[in-house]
Amino acid sequence: MDRITPVVLCGGGGTRLWPRSRARTPKPFLPLIGSRTLFEEALARVEDPAAFAPPIVVTGAAHLDLVDRQLPGGQGRVIVEPEGKNTAAAIALAALRLPEDAVMLVCPSDHHIADDDAFREAALAAAALAAKGWLVAFGIEPTRPETGYGYILRGEAIEGGYRIGRFVEKPDRERAESFLAEGGYSWNGGIFAFRAGSFLEELARHRPALAEAVRASVEQGREDGRCFRPDAATFAAIEAESVDYAVMEETDHAAMVPAAMGWSDIGTWFSLRVAREAEADAQGNIARGPAELVDCRKVMVETDGPRVSVVGLEDVIVVVDGGEVLVTSAAGAAKVGALKGAKGG
Amino acid sequence: MDRITPVVLCGGGGTRLWPRSRARTPKPFLPLIGSRTLFEEALARVEDPAAFAPPIVVTGAAHLDLVDRQLPGGQGRVIVEPEGKNTAAAIALAALRLPEDAVMLVCPSDHHIADDDAFREAALAAAALAAKGWLVAFGIEPTRPETGYGYILRGEAIEGGYRIGRFVEKPDRERAESFLAEGGYSWNGGIFAFRAGSFLEELARHRPALAEAVRASVEQGREDGRCFRPDAATFAAIEAESVDYAVMEETDHAAMVPAAMGWSDIGTWFSLRVAREAEADAQGNIARGPAELVDCRKVMVETDGPRVSVVGLEDVIVVVDGGEVLVTSAAGAAKVGALKGAKGG
Repeated sequence: MDRITPVVLCGGGGTRLWPRSRARTPKPFLPLIGSRTLFEEALARVEDPAAFAPPIVVTGAAHLDLVDRQLPGGQGRVIVEPEGKNTAAAIALAALRLPEDAVMLVCPSDHHIADDDAFREAALAAAALAAKGWLVAFGIEPTRPETGYGYILRGEAIEGGYRIGRFVEKPDRERAESFLAEGGYSWNGGIFAFRAGSFLEELARHRPALAEAVRASVEQGREDGRCFRPDAATFAAIEAESVDYAVMEETDHAAMVPAAMGWSDIGTWFSLRVAREAEADAQGNIARGPAELVDCRKVMVETDGPRVSVVGLEDVIVVVDGGEVLVTSAAGAAKVGALKGAKGG
Repeated sequence: MDRITPVVLCGGGGTRLWPRSRARTPKPFLPLIGSRTLFEEALARVEDPAAFAPPIVVTGAAHLDLVDRQLPGGQGRVIVEPEGKNTAAAIALAALRLPEDAVMLVCPSDHHIADDDAFREAALAAAALAAKGWLVAFGIEPTRPETGYGYILRGEAIEGGYRIGRFVEKPDRERAESFLAEGGYSWNGGIFAFRAGSFLEELARHRPALAEAVRASVEQGREDGRCFRPDAATFAAIEAESVDYAVMEETDHAAMVPAAMGWSDIGTWFSLRVAREAEADAQGNIARGPAELVDCRKVMVETDGPRVSVVGLEDVIVVVDGGEVLVTSAAGAAKVGALKGAKGG
């Protein structure tokens, strides 16, 4: 098998890490865990030239500066989406820029993975399956009855992985608990391996209009340094659809490889706190920026300047950024995206 | 009886309402409850010319501007202490500027009193006793087993009040609870009525050096518009002592009048929240400044500009002032004064 081509999707967006993550500097470009940004982490995971070809980054014009700054010079190519059209189109753009036989590893750039070795192992397994024509999803081992993710049910074993039994929409709490109890269910983390040609064939079979529109916009696109710019007018006609709906749930060749790799989508301030466990002191407190914590347990403070003093609290998150102050309970973190500030009010 | 002369003590100080209260604008001069400052409230309580003469304000040079701004023009006189020497000296300064027969009502300016009528009733009762030579403390009806205040035990009944049985230092929790259960104990709120001559006699009896030093600094002092400035060098030699220690616990003529008047010393952010009850919404939340509270109960937010968004919390206080952010539990509020920021660090 040739080297794997990482396709790093860099969509931006997301309001649940407001006020830290905003339209101007969205989540993938913030150094949320350790000192690297999630985007830099995503690139670093696939930088071994023995296994991986230089990456293709798919992003929007709004984030091109950020991508340019964080993508090491000369490494990789960038596809500039004229507008966001969800993952099916983004992946198709990359597939059309690769030889049919190339194996792509599709990686979101707003996730954290604690165990790089486990990631690599799963990536190689997924790529091997993909090379044989399977459309392969990472099945992430669930560690709690999460209601915010889609699930994948493991099906029949095949060489090097499993068929996908079925995809399950975000469940309610009760079903999520039963998934955990029954076993065989994984989280769908949006990480995939495809042979470029196989992906495009399946897309053309199940979403012919979408496949045709992406192909046209690439044919009418233009090179611009290390960037490729698909044609905007053609692209505008594309129906925005996720790769899950458009391809994975439709194809007869859906497979999965299990992956237990300390994955987190950093979907809320609470999950960020969990992912930052290594930064916690003996009381479980985590502070970034000037802070004084007295009689606190499991408090996380993040401030871009103003000192934050916290007294007598447990399981509370305080974020000060750009003149906004957020104070939330761990449980309340899921509602941050609905705040006026997060919605730009 | 002549009209009562209010003596309003304006010491400043206090770090427990940090970051709102600071050296530059201390607690008495902040509009903490309603729209008036505590100092303005103290003046307003004694502004009825039928009962009260114009006030004497005792303050330090550092706060003279604030006093000038908040003391209505032409009303009252100001004594400018060269330095803070606690309440015995401050009250003696005022007493020396009054005729012997004048009855003084000593009022701190960092307290809140909800029931003005009850205050007035107690003030008149205390003044009547003071006119007869008693040194009279307000005995504030305790409403909780507070460990932060001194207590007064009610003694033998006299006409118009009670002798003081004894003064009790700040008790521990167990004793404070027994005081409440036993009855007869009041909080010592630092409000007193004295005949000027009687006060000075008792001071001279029990603290002759202190009395002499204050007298000398007044004799060598100078008028300055509506201000009087005691001599600084003489004043510097004075030993700082509270009126409780220097006089009230020593004299045989200590009396008290009971006062149930919704008193609060606003000693912490928690007690301020309690005093602001009238500003609370149906969930018990109180917000001053731009704030959004979601799924909150009994949360108080105060901000001088930056928006504060709070999610999913109960009994938490958030204060943003001058680039400092404080987040504290109700119970933690007592420890705010010990924070680095509050100590000027």
